Amino acid sequence: MPTFELGPNQYGKAETRLVRVERAAGGDRLTDLNVSVALRGDLAASHLTGDNAAVLPTDTQKNTVYAFAREFGIASIEAFAARLAEHFVATQPTIHEAKVTIEQYPWQSLGTRHAFRRDASEIRTATVHHGHYGTQVVSGITGLVLLKTTDSEFHGYIKDRYTTLPETRDRVLATSVDATWRAAEGFTDPGPARAALVEAFADTYSLALQQTLFAMGSRVLLRCPDVVEVKLSLPNRHHFLVDLAPFGLDNPNEVYYAADRPYGLIEGVVRRDGAVIPEEVVWSF
Amino acid sequence: MPTFELGPNQYGKAETRLVRVERAAGGDRLTDLNVSVALRGDLAASHLTGDNAAVLPTDTQKNTVYAFAREFGIASIEAFAARLAEHFVATQPTIHEAKVTIEQYPWQSLGTRHAFRRDASEIRTATVHHGHYGTQVVSGITGLVLLKTTDSEFHGYIKDRYTTLPETRDRVLATSVDATWRAAEGFTDPGPARAALVEAFADTYSLALQQTLFAMGSRVLLRCPDVVEVKLSLPNRHHFLVDLAPFGLDNPNEVYYAADRPYGLIEGVVRRDGAVIPEEVVWSF
Amino acid sequence: MPTFELGPNQYGKAETRLVRVERAAGGDRLTDLNVSVALRGDLAASHLTGDNAAVLPTDTQKNTVYAFAREFGIASIEAFAARLAEHFVATQPTIHEAKVTIEQYPWQSLGTRHAFRRDASEIRTATVHHGHYGTQVVSGITGLVLLKTTDSEFHGYIKDRYTTLPETRDRVLATSVDATWRAAEGFTDPGPARAALVEAFADTYSLALQQTLFAMGSRVLLRCPDVVEVKLSLPNRHHFLVDLAPFGLDNPNEVYYAADRPYGLIEGVVRRDGAVIPEEVVWSF
Amino acid sequence: MPTFELGPNQYGKAETRLVRVERAAGGDRLTDLNVSVALRGDLAASHLTGDNAAVLPTDTQKNTVYAFAREFGIASIEAFAARLAEHFVATQPTIHEAKVTIEQYPWQSLGTRHAFRRDASEIRTATVHHGHYGTQVVSGITGLVLLKTTDSEFHGYIKDRYTTLPETRDRVLATSVDATWRAAEGFTDPGPARAALVEAFADTYSLALQQTLFAMGSRVLLRCPDVVEVKLSLPNRHHFLVDLAPFGLDNPNEVYYAADRPYGLIEGVVRRDGAVIPEEVVWSF
Repeated sequence: MPTFELGPNQYGKAETRLVRVERAAGGDRLTDLNVSVALRGDLAASHLTGDNAAVLPTDTQKNTVYAFAREFGIASIEAFAARLAEHFVATQPTIHEAKVTIEQYPWQSLGTRHAFRRDASEIRTATVHHGHYGTQVVSGITGLVLLKTTDSEFHGYIKDRYTTLPETRDRVLATSVDATWRAAEGFTDPGPARAALVEAFADTYSLALQQTLFAMGSRVLLRCPDVVEVKLSLPNRHHFLVDLAPFGLDNPNEVYYAADRPYGLIEGVVRRDGAVIPEEVVWSF
Repeated sequence: MPTFELGPNQYGKAETRLVRVERAAGGDRLTDLNVSVALRGDLAASHLTGDNAAVLPTDTQKNTVYAFAREFGIASIEAFAARLAEHFVATQPTIHEAKVTIEQYPWQSLGTRHAFRRDASEIRTATVHHGHYGTQVVSGITGLVLLKTTDSEFHGYIKDRYTTLPETRDRVLATSVDATWRAAEGFTDPGPARAALVEAFADTYSLALQQTLFAMGSRVLLRCPDVVEVKLSLPNRHHFLVDLAPFGLDNPNEVYYAADRPYGLIEGVVRRDGAVIPEEVVWSF
Repeated sequence: MPTFELGPNQYGKAETRLVRVERAAGGDRLTDLNVSVALRGDLAASHLTGDNAAVLPTDTQKNTVYAFAREFGIASIEAFAARLAEHFVATQPTIHEAKVTIEQYPWQSLGTRHAFRRDASEIRTATVHHGHYGTQVVSGITGLVLLKTTDSEFHGYIKDRYTTLPETRDRVLATSVDATWRAAEGFTDPGPARAALVEAFADTYSLALQQTLFAMGSRVLLRCPDVVEVKLSLPNRHHFLVDLAPFGLDNPNEVYYAADRPYGLIEGVVRRDGAVIPEEVVWSF
Repeated sequence: MPTFELGPNQYGKAETRLVRVERAAGGDRLTDLNVSVALRGDLAASHLTGDNAAVLPTDTQKNTVYAFAREFGIASIEAFAARLAEHFVATQPTIHEAKVTIEQYPWQSLGTRHAFRRDASEIRTATVHHGHYGTQVVSGITGLVLLKTTDSEFHGYIKDRYTTLPETRDRVLATSVDATWRAAEGFTDPGPARAALVEAFADTYSLALQQTLFAMGSRVLLRCPDVVEVKLSLPNRHHFLVDLAPFGLDNPNEVYYAADRPYGLIEGVVRRDGAVIPEEVVWSF
């Protein structure tokens, strides 16, 4: 019987839902997270023979997430993810690399000390890789839906046998921003990066969603000197002008159909010149 | 061969996605709707023999939604739903009742004239029934997630053979508000009703989610004199205190596990004394 | 300060996920359920003052679900739901009505004694109401997606100012079946009802989805003598023929676009003549 | 003002929903696909200045998907994806690489010539990269949920300060299989690979989900001589035995709670010895 080889592999506990309440006289602070851990190391025996001597159970990883929230608090999702990732590698001789991904769901105070409203409009994210190369942090936001009612054109593109799209000098442009960025070292306050993305979307006169993407990434680099690289994934949420002529009506860019599928998907990286991208930031899973 | 009888039936176009842009010098206004139509009437022939002479196609209903947005604008989702419902009954002799349900997705201006951010934290709703009884409007909100870090107890309940829940004098209370309300006539500005719900959730010291529900409904009735009835569906989004003792740690109401399922579900109606409930507005669960 | 009135209300534990394994020499039997309980009764005090003396906690309801699975087994979801509903009313003087809803996720044996594959193509459902009126059982299936490639027409409908839909003598007809049915007493084997629905969809030449709906409901009544009423909710999952003429291609009913939204929604009840519908089994939409 | 650099980027039309009907005397054949296209090439101008002269619009990509279904049919999702990917690169001088991803939703005949039932239990997938390196095809399945009622243990793992999990000699093991595989050249019939995955899950006595993963990957390599590499992502869908002791009941591996989150996630690659992995198979998006 032939033998086969174990290639890249990892395991961990995904989607541990952690809510932490810091109680304070001036008003509580609420931190609402979804934490996923993935570990790599000397894990061949578990795969080949079911010998788990090198395996830190995913249940223990979950416990560690909760215990660390109490022991160390959560200064930021980046710092919390880094602490967890470093812990698993530092304390387990069989674990050589850790990736910790955190989603943070924002809440807004209702003006009292104890009551909050979930702000479902966007999610903050952090992904930390830790290994022999040190600690690499990627910050981000996802789920932020933006729309411009005008100042967007699309024309001058290739026409071939399969082209039917008419050129347009005025369209609605809408997208759901999925952005990540990386600092040269450590990580930076996500506030200015997030603000730069929104601002650039709003004030860029767009001839293509690609142009808007580059403008958004560039604005982050302009405003956040520590950031060396921004990655954006921007679905083009098409809004089609409805043809009302059959009903004897004009439609002066007023009534639109918001389509679900298909959708354009524009993705790209904007870098500070000469930025070096660490290989370990891309895991194959 | 036996013959069978056609019972209650309805048909219509569901989930027509309509976005309307009102362009104005001071800044555009964006209205983002999901419109569902259901019609009732002399529809037996379509069911029994496939004779569609009495059927207004659902495609036409969709077209009407778009055309009306242009012809009449959208002053409010209640008014727009009522206009549509009344139109179908008024213009089609075979259609005797119409129900129009609209979800409105809010957007916030980004401070420029043309750019907006979707506010995904809650959805405004309206359901209009129109028939021989006139026009009945129900307004609402859904998807509003609220949480209190304290000021919530739960004890004094029935214990039986299957009880394991310990009583608590201090718990996190969280829910996703699904609320509808009805005015004696027509409909009212939803702003005060929405504000009353949030305010009552925040300032009610809770001994049961039922008590919070009644307080929320009562607050709407108190603040909105036109409203005669409020219906609330409140899932209890459990936040369980994590037992950190195995790790040598205490947990002074700080670290919680946010559970997905199962969840409590508390539902109820709060009415102004003597409110008469029209049969056609079905409040059943 | 005005006082307000508590209207209809209920509470319970929703979505308790229960998997039961019956171990047998010839092969295990797997039962995978999602159980939701709702109770009604003397619950005013809990709403008005937070006095929970009449409240059986939802946590206890969940425990009862798991304990009953062990104590009594699960002969069918109808019988299990009835046992639970009757238990809550029988054992709690403050609880007068119970509604238990169960979804069952089917699994198929992989041919060994212990291994199974989830069949995600449809979900079996049961809803049981128990109160002073006795026990009312409604059985059903949901999520069953059916399609016919031809033998479906749609024409002869009303044309008005907003009509653009062309008549068709040959279209794809697709739907996702959501069906419930009720026996005169107790409940019946769901197999024949399910088979009748599928068979009638397949062999009915359709001039309207309404006609298909009535044929499906009638077939259940024909095949299942105990069943007195069938309710169907059938979304019309539109498949639009793509216009390939711009590319110099014909499209002889071959290439379709499967649309997401909007969609037609056809709903109706088919009854055995003279069937008496208990008020407590709400058939409203 | 500083200048920034455009890094890796791509664009395309995602989720074009295509249904093709091949009409035949012996029974129609139904092909139900979700097609996503991503292109790379000389796209800097579109990003930097909004000059779209090098851009083939995503709308045209969608049209091409539909037209090719008519012109060339769909012999397999792998062949269809390859044809599309090669077309975009061959016909557009500005496009140098294409990635086409297809999901196929299976349908089962209802025994008549024209009627079908959607089989929602698993999805077939194919991803094709085409560029200067030629055409690379990855086949797969996703969403296949499997469960074993026994023959699964988990013990012998690391214990640390945060361990609470008890060892077990008998547990339920369940997962949702997400598998992809790659042939040395071209692609192979997915049937044997799919069968090997299911068979190995069923007949492997498991000491760890990692061991099951390796067995599943190895079985594919054993049965499919052309396949050089299998990648598996296996969530551990935890089924926890419910503690019924408080109710005076035992629980001899009979009644389980099926948890949603968190969940273990085990991922790994199994390779034929010496398999060379083309770099282009991993795109950073």
